[in-house]
Order: sequence, then C-alpha cells, then structure tokens
Amino acid sequence: MASYAIGVDFGTGSGRAILVDVADGRQLATAVSEYSHGVIDEALPIDDGRVVLPPDWALQDPDDYLRVFRETIPEVLRQSGVEPADVIGLGIDFTACTMLPTTADGTPLSQDPELRANPHAWVKLWKHHAAQPEADRINAVAAATGQPWLDRYGGRISSEWFFSKALQILDEAPEIYAASDRLIEAADWVVWQLTGVETRNACTAGYKALWSKRDGFPDASYFGALDPRLASVVDAKMSRDIRFAGQRAGGLTEEAAAWTGLPAGTAVAVANVDAHVAVPAATVVEPGRMVMIMGTSTCHMVLSAEERSVPGMCGHVEDGIIPGYVGYEAGQSCVGDHFSWFVENAVPEAYQRQARERGVEIHAFLEEKAARLRVGESGLLALDWWNGNRSVLVDAALGGLLVGATLATVPEEIYRALIEATAYGTRVIIETFEANGVPIREIVACGGLADKSPLTLQIYADVTGRPFRLSASEQTPALGSAMFGAVAAGRAAGGFATIEEASAAMARLQDIVYEPIAANRATYDVLHREYVRLHDYFGRGENDVMKVLKGLRADARAVAGAQRVGA
Amino acid sequence: MASYAIGVDFGTGSGRAILVDVADGRQLATAVSEYSHGVIDEALPIDDGRVVLPPDWALQDPDDYLRVFRETIPEVLRQSGVEPADVIGLGIDFTACTMLPTTADGTPLSQDPELRANPHAWVKLWKHHAAQPEADRINAVAAATGQPWLDRYGGRISSEWFFSKALQILDEAPEIYAASDRLIEAADWVVWQLTGVETRNACTAGYKALWSKRDGFPDASYFGALDPRLASVVDAKMSRDIRFAGQRAGGLTEEAAAWTGLPAGTAVAVANVDAHVAVPAATVVEPGRMVMIMGTSTCHMVLSAEERSVPGMCGHVEDGIIPGYVGYEAGQSCVGDHFSWFVENAVPEAYQRQARERGVEIHAFLEEKAARLRVGESGLLALDWWNGNRSVLVDAALGGLLVGATLATVPEEIYRALIEATAYGTRVIIETFEANGVPIREIVACGGLADKSPLTLQIYADVTGRPFRLSASEQTPALGSAMFGAVAAGRAAGGFATIEEASAAMARLQDIVYEPIAANRATYDVLHREYVRLHDYFGRGENDVMKVLKGLRADARAVAGAQRVGA
Repeated sequence: MASYAIGVDFGTGSGRAILVDVADGRQLATAVSEYSHGVIDEALPIDDGRVVLPPDWALQDPDDYLRVFRETIPEVLRQSGVEPADVIGLGIDFTACTMLPTTADGTPLSQDPELRANPHAWVKLWKHHAAQPEADRINAVAAATGQPWLDRYGGRISSEWFFSKALQILDEAPEIYAASDRLIEAADWVVWQLTGVETRNACTAGYKALWSKRDGFPDASYFGALDPRLASVVDAKMSRDIRFAGQRAGGLTEEAAAWTGLPAGTAVAVANVDAHVAVPAATVVEPGRMVMIMGTSTCHMVLSAEERSVPGMCGHVEDGIIPGYVGYEAGQSCVGDHFSWFVENAVPEAYQRQARERGVEIHAFLEEKAARLRVGESGLLALDWWNGNRSVLVDAALGGLLVGATLATVPEEIYRALIEATAYGTRVIIETFEANGVPIREIVACGGLADKSPLTLQIYADVTGRPFRLSASEQTPALGSAMFGAVAAGRAAGGFATIEEASAAMARLQDIVYEPIAANRATYDVLHREYVRLHDYFGRGENDVMKVLKGLRADARAVAGAQRVGA
Repeated sequence: MASYAIGVDFGTGSGRAILVDVADGRQLATAVSEYSHGVIDEALPIDDGRVVLPPDWALQDPDDYLRVFRETIPEVLRQSGVEPADVIGLGIDFTACTMLPTTADGTPLSQDPELRANPHAWVKLWKHHAAQPEADRINAVAAATGQPWLDRYGGRISSEWFFSKALQILDEAPEIYAASDRLIEAADWVVWQLTGVETRNACTAGYKALWSKRDGFPDASYFGALDPRLASVVDAKMSRDIRFAGQRAGGLTEEAAAWTGLPAGTAVAVANVDAHVAVPAATVVEPGRMVMIMGTSTCHMVLSAEERSVPGMCGHVEDGIIPGYVGYEAGQSCVGDHFSWFVENAVPEAYQRQARERGVEIHAFLEEKAARLRVGESGLLALDWWNGNRSVLVDAALGGLLVGATLATVPEEIYRALIEATAYGTRVIIETFEANGVPIREIVACGGLADKSPLTLQIYADVTGRPFRLSASEQTPALGSAMFGAVAAGRAAGGFATIEEASAAMARLQDIVYEPIAANRATYDVLHREYVRLHDYFGRGENDVMKVLKGLRADARAVAGAQRVGA
C-alpha cells in the first residue's frame, strides 16, 4: 500500500504544502496560502492602522500561519486524490528566527484584546531588524565576559536572533515581557498548535538561540548581566528539553485534524528551518558536499563529523541539520537581491524595451547577453557587499564596490560582474571551510536563483573549481519537511527509521552537472586573487572608507529627518 | 565708427563663426557649418568606402574646413547687417593636435588622386589614437636619452600629439611621408589658406610639438634616434619661425575675400587652440585665476609669471596662452562623457519615462533629484577614471571605481557621486598646482557643461573651496578668436595693442558667483581625503587591479576577435 507525507514550508509571504509519495519523493500536489497580512512593517492591521511601526520593524500575524494548514492541506489532498489515512506523517519548516510571546496555553499575546495594540505582542519576523541595540549589548557583554559560545557563531550574533528580539521586548515593553508565559519560535508554535504539545527544536535553538547539545543555553548569570529580569528567561519562558529533527513531536489533535482533513493522531515531526531542512532533500546527508539555497540571499550548509571552529560563519550546531553530524551554516546576504537591485536601478530603457519586444524576462535577457562575454572580457570586478557581508567578515556596515568601468562598459558587463562577485564570495566561504578542516568537494544548489540561471551555476563552478549539481525538486524545503514527517512516522508506519534512509529514497538530483571549465578557471583564479586582495583591504580594516561613507550617509539623513520634522 | 571682429572656432564635428562688436564683445551673429564628412573613423569617403580604417583611427577632410569659411562668414555678415569693411580682423581656433601633410604650396595630399586612397594622406584628427606605438617609442627614447623637455609635459607625451602622428606616417606610409613637403597643424593650414602665408603658432608648437621659446624643438639627434629619416623633420617639413598669439599672420587673399565676402587684406591673426583662446575670453589675462573649459572632457588653463615644474600636467609653454606668461594646461579626460555614459547605460526606464512625461531633459531630471541630496547622503564615492586619468597621474590604463553602493542606492545618488568624483579630480589638480608654486584663488568656467549644470558648479565650489564664476559668452573660444583678430588688426585700425586690452573691453563674466558653502566644505573635506587615499592606492601602483582587468579584457577580446576571424 502506498504511503504519503506532507511537508509545509512557511516562507516570508506565504506558506506552501506539498504532498509526496514516500516511496520515491514524487510530488503529487502543491498548494499555496498567502498570508493575509503579509509582512507588517508600516502599521498594525488593527484600529485603522493607527499604530504605526518604527523603521526596521517586521511583524506577522500568527493567524496567517494556521490558515496555511486549513487552506493548503485539504487542497493537496483534494488535488492528489490521496486517502487522508494514507498520509503517514507531516513535517514543517519555517523562517527563523521568527518568534512570538504567548500565554502558557500557547495563545499569542497579539490575540489578547488588552495587549493587541502593542507591537511587541505580535510575531517578530526573521527580518525584523530593530533589535540592533540589543544585539550590540549581547555581543559586548559576551565579549567582556568571555562567553565560550561566541566562537560558534563567527564571533558575533545577529539582531535577527532570538535573544536580541526577546531583549528588545523586555527593553521596550516590559509589560509584554512580563505577560508572556512563553517566548517561542513560530516553527515550534505551529507544531504546538497541530499537536497540542509544546516542543523545542534543536535547529532554531542551536542556530538562533545560542544553545548547544553539549553546553545547553548560556548561563543565567550571563542573561542577568544583560538585564537582571532576563536571568531566568530560559527556565521561565523557554525550555531546556530540546528535540531533534525527525523526532515525533506528537500526533494531530482532533481540532487540527478538522482543520486539515487528516486523521487525528497523524505523526507530526519536530519543527525545522527552511534552509536546514533542504539539506537532506538535496541528497546531502554526509560531509563533503555543500548545499547552497540560492534566493534573495544564499545559505550555505555543510556537515562535518567533527566540530571545527570556522571563523565568520553563521554558526555550527551539533545535530543541527542531520543527527550525528555538526551542521555548519554560512551566508551571503546579497545574491538575488543584488540582481534585482541592478534591474530596478541600473538597466537602461533600451534594454527593457528590447526584452519586452522579444517577450523575454529582463533577467533572462541580461543573462543571455552576459553569457556571450568571455571570462575577463567585462574588465570589471565587484565586491558583493551591497547588503554588507555575512560570511566570512560578519560586517553589515560594508558596502558594494565596482572597479574597472570605462566609457565602453555596457550593462550586461556589470550584470555579469555582479554574478561573478557572488561567486568569489562563495569561493571565499569554501576556502575558509577547507582551511579549517571542513572539506567541500561538490555543491548542490537549490532555490529560485539556481533553477533560473544556468550562467550563474557555470560561473560558480568555474570560480570555485567544484562541480555544481541541482536538487531535482522545485520545492526542496517542503520536500525536506515531508521527509522528516516520514521519519517521524517511523518505519513501522511505512516511513523511515532515519533521515538518511528517507533521503536515499525520496531525494533526487537533476541530471545536469555544471563542471568547471579549465580555461575559465585559470582566468577566474587571477580575478579571484584580485577579489581577495580588495576583500581584505576594504573588509579587514586597512581602508574603512565604506564605514566612513555609511557614517556620513547616516548623519546626512539624520539632519534631513530633523528638518522634515521641524518643517 | 563701430568696428567688428570675427572669430571662427573649428570643433570636432563643425565650425562656428561669430561676429562681435570690438567695443564691448557683444555678439551680433553666429553661424555653424557641419563638416560634410564629419569624423572619418570607419572608411575613407571615396571609392564607395572600400578603404576601411583600423580601430582608433580618426581622420577629417580639409575641404570641410574651407567650407566653414565659405558658409559661415557670409552668413554672419548677412545676419548682422554689418558692413564687411567694418570688420577689422579675423581669428581662428582649432582642435589640436589635428595635423595634415601637404605639398609645398599647401595642397593637402588627400587631394592628390595618386595618394588619396592612402589614409595617411588625410587629416589626422586630435582623437586619432592609432599612434600609441609611436608615442611609446617617443617616450622611451626621450627617457633613455634624458631629454630635458620631457618634464614640461608631465613626464609623458601623448599619442595625440604632433610627432606621434608624424612618426606613424613615416612608420606605416613612408611614401606619404616622403611626398609631404609640409607637415602642419590644421590650425596653421587654414590661416595659410586665408592669407597665402604659411605661419606656425606658438600654442600648438609648444603644447603639441615639444617646442619652447627658450630651447626651440628637440635636437635632430633625438629625432634621428627615433628614425634616421625623421632627423630633419623640423627643417624639412616644419618651421622654426614660430609666431605668437595676436600677431598678424597676414591679410585675406583675393580668393579668401571672395569666399568670405570680406575685403582682401583684412587682418588675420596667427592660429590658436580652442581651449587656450578661451582664457582671455573668460577675462583671465593674469595668474591666480584658472579657466576650466568643461565639456566631454575638461581643460584647465592657468598662467604663471615664473616657470614651475608641475608634475602630471599636459604641459606648460612660455607665451603659450598669453604673451608674457607661462601657460599651464591640465586635463580631466572624462567629465561630460562620464554623465553621458551614465545616462546611456545606467538610467532605468522609469526615470526616462518620468522625465519625458514632465518634458524635462534626462540630465536635468537627474540633476534635480541629485540636488535634493545632502552632501554625504548618497553614501557613495567614485574615482572619475572611466576614461583613464590625464592629470595628475597621466595614466590612460586606469579605470573607474564606485564604492559604497547598497540595496537602497538610487540612480541620482550614483549620478551625484560621478559629478563629485570629477570635482575631487579638479581639487587634486588645483592642489598639485599650488603645491608647486602656481596659486589658484578663483575659477572661471566655460563650455557646455558649465552653462547647463548649476549643481555641478556648486559642488565644484564646495569641494575645491574656491569661488566659481562663469564666462558670459556661450561661445567663449570663438569670442577669444575674434579678440585675437582685433589684436592682429591693431589699435590704429580700431582694434587693440594687446590681448589684455582686448580682454578688458570685450570679455565678460556672468553675474552669478558660486561661493563655497562652509557646511558642505567640511563634509567634502572628509570625502576628499577618502578620494585621495583611493586615488593614491589605485593610481600610484600599490594596487594595479585596474591594469590587470584591462589586460584580461584585452586578452579576452583578442581571443574573441581571432575566433570571429576564424569563423
């Protein structure tokens, strides 16, 4: 009898479910539910928008997440015609760190009429960037007190992470902090809503909340040094009972069964994170092969049998991706965003018109022209720091650079230089891993950018000197969640005992392999040396012009803002 | 009785005459004649275009120059209603070095049916850049033999200059070199055609042909070291009788009188160069005030009572601009061209559409947006080297650079950064002059860019800390030529004894003064320090990435070209 699993991938603007065959991973149906309130970054969606949000805020409405279950799971069942009883398990993945305060029974504080008008009662989305002062404090106190965990996160933690956001609630809305019985990742919260059981997953705990399998969370004394009221945060509002990917969080409640059309008791896996769950879905369950999830930004995931300290990464977590391995995450903060910026701000009218006349999407039009250039022909070199640099410099204050422009420079040359810059950035990451004992011999790419741009993959192969392969699924994270759902169901129920087994059965690569072309590699070696020289000159403190410029910009904007207020 | 003078300005694509009142410089009429063959850079305009030109060639047809006289002078007489007999003098200015080979009687070799199919028989326009190998040889031999004149030209002479072009004729077409009785600047050639007298002007001789009032031309032994056949070039094909600006070259011949409608014998001034003749027309006849002719590129002209060696300038010539002073010329090779490149290659469709909808020219549209930015607000800094750097680095192999871009960067911020980069480049020139004993306390700007862009002038004033004024004439070079025509006529004929007298009577400034704004200066001082640091890092050999990139580009293009040929 056939068995099926469902994976639900919660993105920034929508949630998507897929239903797959457990035997071979074949996707039978997919459905999407857009969040009705999307990203809330201007005003709360209540009281006629009277509660206006400051800059850098990004909230969501937890009701939108539950609607994803109610809309998409019945729909994939309907599309596929699969018997609900044949669905053996369900897994979810989520953006992270996306977190919210709730009552002891899991009710979001944003549903409390008394608290609802306070923005801190709502879900803080991963890209809520208003907790930078708190992140700065967390880093400063960690450095001053010699916290041993700081090294695991490349020496600096982000304003996006769990305790930055928690501390911002405490700083700015102590009444919300006091009213919250639980502070929880949205990933764990939706699993709680499905199963009635509060679990905490090792992936978000490890990558976003400073937890490790060996050492647990930072000490209460450290939290107390940040703010005495925060000393008890883990025991009072979180949990030290951390569960691992593929474990069964629980079974569907009667209520969740009614939402979804699945039988009560259907196995639900412990929550996971979108990038991390993509790894086994891209066939990677062992060291030596890096998964790159390429979208607006890129996440790099790689496994190692041993724990190594690799500078400038986003973090490494034992059992964080695949149980039994240390999972490393690195990041490039500006990839697809880079090309979108270019198309919006720097592509001339004639190109847009020609693309329209030929019925070609503008990125494809530029790629076609860029692909005709030989390696080195543009005469350009860029530093891909339009959105700062995450790995390996961990410095958001860096800015972009383009060198070599002439009066003969044309747009496709700049476009290609921007692609190449992201490839050099990837090579720096790979070489940093390898220099620190984490070998990478092949890359598996997935995500929208990987599927759309063969030129990008060939350039990446040529620049890094490594073959690039592609995940076969167009919904790699959702497939990964379905796979973990099948593991949570277990072998007896028609699923799998381990994620390795699930990956072997359900994950596929496309046939195409982008192999490095020797002649291109030689020229790219020359260009990469120049990139590294500029990277180190501008990125490691010898010339801080990028920071001087950002400082002047901030000053000018502050004056302009003050004048507007005074006007 | 009123007296009038005519100035004729020979540009790259056309010639323009103006007729002015000698009493006050008031312009009564103007007329333009487009060159029928324009810039000849693809094929000779004979034999159905069968004679194709190699890259970097730029020729002209001398017939087009004579047509300028025949078309424009009758037209300005007609427009103004001035009696031809009341025109006391005529002056001309020309692009330089623009040169041609002629017979002993001044007939261009391009008119010889036997030689006409050889491109070397034609006029080589200033921007003919195919003589780079010859320029390299001239520089190498000069350095090896310790030529004392090399310092006067910033240590390196250009492929655009007279002996580079003459040596190219000898190298590539020795039969044309042998057939040429005269090698002459087009400036001097048109005066010869008007007067029947061959003269040679100090301005082109000094700035383009290595001549100086004190030392004359380089020795025959030097020319012989370049090529034994070149040893006699000065005595055989040029002249050591050099005439100075404002001197009378001769009077109009009967034939030229018939062309122009002016009386035979009308005074014609010794020829001059467009940028140099603009100086007294911009009211500058003394040290301390620099004239900037701002167009696609910018020329900077300044006078000094004493000879100083200033590194990285285009040259300095005693009596080269105003008799009695050493005239210095510096250059920025990418100014208006910079902004044109940006508009053609990097302005998005939405901006073009908005500009059209508002009926505003796109440069004006961008300037309006850029003007709303505060100093420093763009967060960007550029090196204005899209076309290499003339002064003070004298290095055509440098390339452009933009640093500080973010995902929030918008087109007007880049546009403003490019303007600012040219201002920093100007400040480097000014500071180099001052550090070497040539003070500059005020700038007078003229040229198309100066007239069109108030934002540019305010930025230049703020960056350099000096007031910027504007020449009142929209045809400053043509006015300067008319002024020298009035000097050539002399006081007795209703003209002037000296160019200083002519300038006092005929040259005017606009009322507006762009004064430095103190608050802007302070921020620009910070930005200029960062510019200079990048300028020295990339421009003085510490990081040669720009040259590496140009080398790779040339290699890639050579392979691509070879493949096309083989295809």
